[in-house]
Amino acid sequence: MTRKFAIGVDYGTNSVRALVVDIATGEEIATEVFDYRRGEAGILLDPADPNLARQSPAEYIDGFLASVGGAVAKARQCDGFDPAQVVGIGIDTTGSTPLPVNAEGVALALTDEFKDDLAAQAWLWKDHTSHAEADEITQKAALAGLPYLAKCGGRYSSEWYWSKILHCMRTAPHVAKAAAAWVECADYIPAYLTGNSRPDRIVRSICAAGHKAMYHEDWGGLPSAEFLESLEPGLSRFRYSGKAAPADHPAGKLRADVAEKVGLPPGVTVSVAAFDAHMGAVGSGCGPGVLVKIIGTSTCDCMVAPLSKPLPDVPGLCGIVPESIVPGMYGLEAGQSAVGDIFNWFVKHLSPSDYGQGAAAHAGLTEAAARLRPGESGLVALDWNNGNRTVLVDPLLTGLLVGQTLHTTAPEIYRALIEGTAFGALTIINRLEEYGVKVEQVINCGGIAEKSPLVMQIYADVCNRPMKVSRSAQTCALGAAIFGAVAGGAYPSVEAAQANMTGVRDVVYTPIPENVAIYARLYRVYKTLHDAFGTPGASGPLYGVMKDLIALRDEVRKRAA
Amino acid sequence: MTRKFAIGVDYGTNSVRALVVDIATGEEIATEVFDYRRGEAGILLDPADPNLARQSPAEYIDGFLASVGGAVAKARQCDGFDPAQVVGIGIDTTGSTPLPVNAEGVALALTDEFKDDLAAQAWLWKDHTSHAEADEITQKAALAGLPYLAKCGGRYSSEWYWSKILHCMRTAPHVAKAAAAWVECADYIPAYLTGNSRPDRIVRSICAAGHKAMYHEDWGGLPSAEFLESLEPGLSRFRYSGKAAPADHPAGKLRADVAEKVGLPPGVTVSVAAFDAHMGAVGSGCGPGVLVKIIGTSTCDCMVAPLSKPLPDVPGLCGIVPESIVPGMYGLEAGQSAVGDIFNWFVKHLSPSDYGQGAAAHAGLTEAAARLRPGESGLVALDWNNGNRTVLVDPLLTGLLVGQTLHTTAPEIYRALIEGTAFGALTIINRLEEYGVKVEQVINCGGIAEKSPLVMQIYADVCNRPMKVSRSAQTCALGAAIFGAVAGGAYPSVEAAQANMTGVRDVVYTPIPENVAIYARLYRVYKTLHDAFGTPGASGPLYGVMKDLIALRDEVRKRAA
Repeated sequence: MTRKFAIGVDYGTNSVRALVVDIATGEEIATEVFDYRRGEAGILLDPADPNLARQSPAEYIDGFLASVGGAVAKARQCDGFDPAQVVGIGIDTTGSTPLPVNAEGVALALTDEFKDDLAAQAWLWKDHTSHAEADEITQKAALAGLPYLAKCGGRYSSEWYWSKILHCMRTAPHVAKAAAAWVECADYIPAYLTGNSRPDRIVRSICAAGHKAMYHEDWGGLPSAEFLESLEPGLSRFRYSGKAAPADHPAGKLRADVAEKVGLPPGVTVSVAAFDAHMGAVGSGCGPGVLVKIIGTSTCDCMVAPLSKPLPDVPGLCGIVPESIVPGMYGLEAGQSAVGDIFNWFVKHLSPSDYGQGAAAHAGLTEAAARLRPGESGLVALDWNNGNRTVLVDPLLTGLLVGQTLHTTAPEIYRALIEGTAFGALTIINRLEEYGVKVEQVINCGGIAEKSPLVMQIYADVCNRPMKVSRSAQTCALGAAIFGAVAGGAYPSVEAAQANMTGVRDVVYTPIPENVAIYARLYRVYKTLHDAFGTPGASGPLYGVMKDLIALRDEVRKRAA
Repeated sequence: MTRKFAIGVDYGTNSVRALVVDIATGEEIATEVFDYRRGEAGILLDPADPNLARQSPAEYIDGFLASVGGAVAKARQCDGFDPAQVVGIGIDTTGSTPLPVNAEGVALALTDEFKDDLAAQAWLWKDHTSHAEADEITQKAALAGLPYLAKCGGRYSSEWYWSKILHCMRTAPHVAKAAAAWVECADYIPAYLTGNSRPDRIVRSICAAGHKAMYHEDWGGLPSAEFLESLEPGLSRFRYSGKAAPADHPAGKLRADVAEKVGLPPGVTVSVAAFDAHMGAVGSGCGPGVLVKIIGTSTCDCMVAPLSKPLPDVPGLCGIVPESIVPGMYGLEAGQSAVGDIFNWFVKHLSPSDYGQGAAAHAGLTEAAARLRPGESGLVALDWNNGNRTVLVDPLLTGLLVGQTLHTTAPEIYRALIEGTAFGALTIINRLEEYGVKVEQVINCGGIAEKSPLVMQIYADVCNRPMKVSRSAQTCALGAAIFGAVAGGAYPSVEAAQANMTGVRDVVYTPIPENVAIYARLYRVYKTLHDAFGTPGASGPLYGVMKDLIALRDEVRKRAA
């Protein structure tokens, strides 16, 4: 029997991965990673502004050619692979990562005029320059009694589409003026690959539009021109294209010139893209009652629920968007703004020399941290080094560590940081269940879930739930491949493809009752700190602390710049 | 003219220093340091209990012989030195560091039966095992309406004399039972050196008794037998000896056997001892209106005020004791439980390899931290890694760091820790002035004051006051030598000796107005955290956070032990 294949292309923050998958079994026969080359691991930074994080769209094109080309070349070594048997290509990306394009759909950053202009690059999801604009959008929508925020936790984020455009209009008007549209990276890549780059021809991803651009069928798509103009005259002209589609829809056919460069026949179906975590959820086997946690530099927590049953708005959830994950279901997205990034930060900046550097330091600290008993360090950390996405939806929060003595060791702090992220994870689960979304099963995926039994055991103990791990090590790319297969017509539904192509590992991390009891007490401390420092309505003056420090920091840096 | 000399012997936490001083000029002609040899740098620890810190009294005897013997031998190389011209020896020690002795005044720890018993050693000042007993003393004194705590900040400390004895009676009754008395290290050493070791013959240091054992003329000396018995039957029998004396009084004459070993004639006057910081204040030139900050592993802040003028009780001050620093004056003592210890903790446990280790790491981090602008890190730290001595008088507090992002660097944290100690210093100055003790001048001494212009500049900017530095690098030992000279009859008063023997350096750290303005804002954040986490009456649930974590930590460790 002829084997058939799909290719998933997973655009991350620092690299892109292509994965060639046998669609009958989910077997991953070849993969290739391309590390971005510009700036610091692909991120363009501004020393004067720690909130800024941009990316060159050239990475996306270079990355596709190198990763897909490489993966296809490797796949050719495998028995039964034939490029002609690739039924579809699926794409996932970071987001919200919008970039300005001209009327032809060419990224401004790829034109001579703007190639060195930071404002003309893709504004990476973790760019937080637009927090003032995010607050403004939140306030104006609330004041006007508009429903746009009900589906995204009640607060618009500085990570999201309109905040970034608004900030660009105000701080780099020459770029905003030259832009015909601002295209999500998730839309830009399939558009580029299929030759449908002109803004009015783009099939917009419902995942990107729904979670980041306030797109919803209830109000006929994107926010009204009137509302957008009230934020800034001219903003409404960036409402490119019309209806958004889920990722089982084709975005078009692979361009012949690109196909040739990567060793595929022209005309392979490219599906509409979605965000990496959402496709990771699909690749992990998400379905009703299953929480999928994609644990990487940050965490994305995804669930789905049948469209047939009404779902309340859940305060603080980044998004509840019909069909953003699985067609025919609500997609629910929550997340933590930094998880692996916090551990990496600690290793990069604070790990003493005895532990070596990089991976060796992680290994040494993990080994030492694993020997500690819950509670014995007397430490608790808030996991807010990159703000808080769920349930506080506030980028202007920062990390906090309490309990250190003169004997506190690096492994104790490392473990406290892990525990802090676990408490953050529990806060999300609790919020979901408070609003009736029952979490019956937790499946974890991503590098940390696979490589760190310590992290998984702490998550099991803190959340008092078994932690399962996805079978695939590349769930985002696998999810993208599943959509490639469905959009290419090889499966009638995502569920049908998932049944064959996904699964979990044998190892399950089970809560240890003794640890559960101690973590229940530590969580009370975490929650006290969480509420005091993170909740505007909290009694006491702590809510202002992190904000005052950030304001002073920004003021001092600006003055010095 | 024949030169005359005094010897100051300064017993620190990890070592003892002897200093030979020309009494006409303060010139320091010879010095010798002896590092303690037992445990971790002289401190006997218990891995199961981070609160425990003990010390062998053998260090004190070995240390005297080695340091004084060494200094005298070096002094012999100097023109004009003659052992016969040594007019007196002064002693300063850590405290409260009580140790149990038998009826002959022999330290139990020096007997075969108890030599390996941790409870029979000297209970070092930073031993915090007795916090429950400290709370009990505070509560019982308050309930009974007794005045004992009015002069020591309103709260009895776990660092102090009676807490430690009480804890020993309850946890190591065999030791308490074998003890005829508990003698402060400050009393034990002169008693040993002069052969007046029997508890009833000891001339008790008013500094040690007044600041740590609730001794006060107002109530006829030590607390009443009735009160002590109400704490624990039998406690009152440890009230050894009668009247306490200031350090310008002789404790006796140097024993012939000891004198011979150190190369001095027998019969040299040994003065009553006092605590290291108090003698450091004298060696730095303290007088009315002058705050002397002795900045080492911890900080001690000393002032004096004329006995002739009434002085209110200052809440949170560790002590207001007549004649504890300068005879004829109130001695006021405040302090921070950890300063250099916090910087050392950071370097030992969290300094990344790029900065090397130990002194090199301090130098590298200081250099990088000095390039930062106040406020630009967005960090604030509470300086409570070893509890808070003034103004909260609470050992059950811990460190806190807030404001960290994914970009926060080690030098930023290092600087934030320095700033945290500076905010702690300002809190003490503010408290003194709120109660009418005007701080007209600040003189700093100790290793950090001499070696770190960065720390001194930050203190000047945070406190908005010029920071002066004592001329002597060994102010504690110099102060002890001054008392040796006065007790030996070479000067009529401490002030007269100070006029000749002390001074400040040319360099003065002057506040930089721009930094002062920023630190005023950061101090508001510090004060908000300070009050929320450190004040029992604070609104909001933060006050319990550090205590809950400590309780859980101790419970987990105890269960595992």
